[in-house]
Amino acid sequence: MKIAVMLAGSGVYDGSEIYETTLTLLNLDQAGVSVQCMAPDIPQAHVINHLTGEEMPGEQRNVLIEAARVARGEIIDLADADPAEYDAVIVPGGFGVAKNLCDFAFRADAMAIHPGVQSFIQAVHKAGKPVGLICIAPTMAVRLFGEGTLCTIGTNEDVAGAIERMGGKHKVCPVDELVVDEARKLVTTPAYMDAGRISEAAVGIEKLVAKVIAMA
Amino acid sequence: MKIAVMLAGSGVYDGSEIYETTLTLLNLDQAGVSVQCMAPDIPQAHVINHLTGEEMPGEQRNVLIEAARVARGEIIDLADADPAEYDAVIVPGGFGVAKNLCDFAFRADAMAIHPGVQSFIQAVHKAGKPVGLICIAPTMAVRLFGEGTLCTIGTNEDVAGAIERMGGKHKVCPVDELVVDEARKLVTTPAYMDAGRISEAAVGIEKLVAKVIAMA
Repeated sequence: MKIAVMLAGSGVYDGSEIYETTLTLLNLDQAGVSVQCMAPDIPQAHVINHLTGEEMPGEQRNVLIEAARVARGEIIDLADADPAEYDAVIVPGGFGVAKNLCDFAFRADAMAIHPGVQSFIQAVHKAGKPVGLICIAPTMAVRLFGEGTLCTIGTNEDVAGAIERMGGKHKVCPVDELVVDEARKLVTTPAYMDAGRISEAAVGIEKLVAKVIAMA
Repeated sequence: MKIAVMLAGSGVYDGSEIYETTLTLLNLDQAGVSVQCMAPDIPQAHVINHLTGEEMPGEQRNVLIEAARVARGEIIDLADADPAEYDAVIVPGGFGVAKNLCDFAFRADAMAIHPGVQSFIQAVHKAGKPVGLICIAPTMAVRLFGEGTLCTIGTNEDVAGAIERMGGKHKVCPVDELVVDEARKLVTTPAYMDAGRISEAAVGIEKLVAKVIAMA
């Protein structure tokens, strides 16, 4: 079994959330699953100073190059990835997902998904394989899988409302649980949308990875 | 119990190794230990493109600001940290330890440690509290704790040789084990000095964190 992990940079505020990514990779490796990290070769929407939370003016970074940090260099350009080679795809969270892989952070329910991200995930989905979306990543679910898609981002009413306005079915979910759209083979868990501690995020992510593997 | 985790940036080639850091924080949190990440507010020795492994010419980054990525912003300047507040200190690996916290990567056994790093760790040690050094971090052990210090960096003969030339006692150790200098309360494990997979690194780090907590 081989599973794609799609990344959006490296860091909670402008890239992939580092703990969610690491825990996803740990659980996949512990299950003996082969993993390939991938990310689009595009500029980051912006660069955030993670010490202050402020934007770093004039600073430019590349999503693929920064995502390589959390992949220890073992990453490919999304444009070179063939969805037919994978049994599933998982997208960890972090604001970079909502800024680089799509533009939910800037346009909410008027959002669009990066074409390469959309076509890869949809191809995996249309082949009948499962998709796991963690934390803020389920904001892409309705655009990817159509109206009526069932998912969770935890308890955040603003984000849940945006998902509902796009035509999705949002289900409130505790941080240590997951929501499964069985028909669409979509698995979602809140992770750091609601987690206060890394050990809380770890429980939901472990369940998500196990469920994605079971459905693959 | 409160344990300090000292960071060197964010990324295996110029900062703290991200998986080692995340797994250290996970194990500490799962044990109910309070954690404070800290890093020196200094420029990185250089910035490495983690996709190509090459230096990024003209690029400058700050150790504390980049380390804030792997700490989700929950980090303090090492200069503001009081060693008396902590029951132990753990330093995850990554080449940033050997480039930013000390200069082992550039000068091998002629190395020196950043004064703030040295004084913090020595203060914890002199108070009779344990120190955990992961991966490449044990290259600092002899300068910190004196000749005769027992440690491991796994199986790398070049690095082990440099430790011996500084006056240390290096013990070859498998990736899933640790070496303890009982007299000095120093715990070391090879992690990504030898790990081929994240699940391998996880075993040794889990044991190191448990041992540090037990000695604290």
